[in-house]
Amino acid sequence: MNDVTLPYAALRGFAFEVFTKMGCPPDQANTAATALLRADLRGIDSHGVARLSGYVRLWEAKRVNSQPDIKVVHESPSTAVVDGDAGLGLVVAPKAMEIAIAKANVAGTGWVAVRNSNHFGIAGHHAMMALPHDMIGIAMTNASPLVAPTFSVERLLGTNPIAVAIPADQQPPFVADFATTTAANGKLEVLQRKGHEAPVGWIQKRDGSASVNPNELKDGGALIPLGSDREHGSHKGFCLGAWVDIFSAVLGGANYGPWVPPFVSFLAPPSDPVGAGIGHFFGAMRIDAFRPAQEFKQHMDNWIGRFRAAATVDGHDKVIIPGDPERIYEAEREREGIPVNPKVMDDLRALAQTFQLTI
Amino acid sequence: MNDVTLPYAALRGFAFEVFTKMGCPPDQANTAATALLRADLRGIDSHGVARLSGYVRLWEAKRVNSQPDIKVVHESPSTAVVDGDAGLGLVVAPKAMEIAIAKANVAGTGWVAVRNSNHFGIAGHHAMMALPHDMIGIAMTNASPLVAPTFSVERLLGTNPIAVAIPADQQPPFVADFATTTAANGKLEVLQRKGHEAPVGWIQKRDGSASVNPNELKDGGALIPLGSDREHGSHKGFCLGAWVDIFSAVLGGANYGPWVPPFVSFLAPPSDPVGAGIGHFFGAMRIDAFRPAQEFKQHMDNWIGRFRAAATVDGHDKVIIPGDPERIYEAEREREGIPVNPKVMDDLRALAQTFQLTI
Repeated sequence: MNDVTLPYAALRGFAFEVFTKMGCPPDQANTAATALLRADLRGIDSHGVARLSGYVRLWEAKRVNSQPDIKVVHESPSTAVVDGDAGLGLVVAPKAMEIAIAKANVAGTGWVAVRNSNHFGIAGHHAMMALPHDMIGIAMTNASPLVAPTFSVERLLGTNPIAVAIPADQQPPFVADFATTTAANGKLEVLQRKGHEAPVGWIQKRDGSASVNPNELKDGGALIPLGSDREHGSHKGFCLGAWVDIFSAVLGGANYGPWVPPFVSFLAPPSDPVGAGIGHFFGAMRIDAFRPAQEFKQHMDNWIGRFRAAATVDGHDKVIIPGDPERIYEAEREREGIPVNPKVMDDLRALAQTFQLTI
Repeated sequence: MNDVTLPYAALRGFAFEVFTKMGCPPDQANTAATALLRADLRGIDSHGVARLSGYVRLWEAKRVNSQPDIKVVHESPSTAVVDGDAGLGLVVAPKAMEIAIAKANVAGTGWVAVRNSNHFGIAGHHAMMALPHDMIGIAMTNASPLVAPTFSVERLLGTNPIAVAIPADQQPPFVADFATTTAANGKLEVLQRKGHEAPVGWIQKRDGSASVNPNELKDGGALIPLGSDREHGSHKGFCLGAWVDIFSAVLGGANYGPWVPPFVSFLAPPSDPVGAGIGHFFGAMRIDAFRPAQEFKQHMDNWIGRFRAAATVDGHDKVIIPGDPERIYEAEREREGIPVNPKVMDDLRALAQTFQLTI
């Protein structure tokens, strides 16, 4: 079966209706639908409407609060801790990023740790909120434990992504957004659907030996930190994932490491939580707290232009600047629609039936 | 020839005398000697006294100013830009980190971009300055271009390390300090001395094909970003190195990318600089700007204890917590002395002769 292509507005509207049926107030349903669909627009299909039914199931399991009272519970001139009141991460994260931006407006930078939240979609969407303010945006989150630290057979960390968005002038912005593992879980899902093997270095078996089976995690296997093995720096990928976990959860009081609640509603959260929900961390840095924004952005143009023009290895025509592939997807899919996988389409049709909506 | 083991105090004293002979004021010679020797103490031999003659040669070439006027040139409540006046990075970096800590005391966090500096030793030393203040410390720097972005044959980035130091209570602190490449340049130097090959995935030839020759960089080859190849996430390592370059240099007005001046004095800096010297970036985050420090540190104990106790792959007896190996080296070498490679010893003896010192 082939993908069905649906217009962005139709899918976004459908997500808005679903969030509304869950009881989200209109402004929050709107924020959540925009954040969710940003993943589909940017070509990160694993994090968009493919997850809509997952969010609904978490709400049915009473693990997502559709009418959260999102509050600052601690603050200083440049920092805040936000309690997400078990709201959708898709709602809590943009709110926290707004607070970071407001702090940066006054103090030069703003840093917000979030507890008691849920999965927030793609990190890049939140980091990019800083760009129109001539700020650098940073977003990170912890996630369900699927990753084994170097030398371990236990799944103790999530794929813990980091996004950094940096404005330029004539060039498009620099937007890095990546899991701190060799490969994100979404890449395994693609291989599972196609029945293909994974490269060595992405996954380990339950005993820690190498695996090429993209279904290995169902059998107690684990994803591997960026670097693949000790000799190629997997301990550095572990450092990165750990850093994200500590900033996202230990700073603000969320669950960390193996205590992070699973995304899937059929697995119960650990019975001995060390914090509240999952955690995120956001930063906003006002460029002109360092140097005039226009001067900075012109140097970013020079930086990006130089790297884009770099001589390439035979068989590759250009160096990819972080954010380039996603930006190209976004322009194309806004114009031509979003391809939806048949299994995801079935999911959406089931949701439409549950909530008496049309898709 | 075997290593010679010298007491820490003797080597530190020698470095102090050399910096003094270069014209550094006593307090700066002291700061520089402490920063330099911290690398030897922590087992990062490539960044310690092995580089002392390199710093002297940069001073002889008038690229290092031994009496710099280090100044804040721009600031906001939580940020500053520091001009290092071409001083030793070993002096400029601790000064900038002090400013970050002072900002964090008032604003919750402090972020300092540095221009017009030189190589600063190990990033971890500077990040760890935050720990006694119950702060998280962050340090990064750009460096001479030796690294090719994914798909490129050009050396456009340095090994651009990041360090993050996070305090705990009874457990030792979490200290990650790593180059954003698969392997740091110092590891190649070790292989060169031993006449060993490098693993595939560390180095590429001038045409971008794989190499196992640790001398490949002398022939136009390049180091590879963390991840080793596109399939294993080298584009993520490139993102990290780029992030460090932009924060360290574009924010504060230093040279970035291929414009970063080389560390070795016999290679001239680019004739078309885009900024001043090399750049660093520092951060200090006061823990109690987020939650009570004691509460945080107890959770860090729990985090570290859980990861340290993780079940391991056969053949490995424990998971290594970031900072463990360096801490063990530091305790041992403070007590038993620092082993100095014979070639480095020759270098130090030559310096002793030049400056009429004893070693």
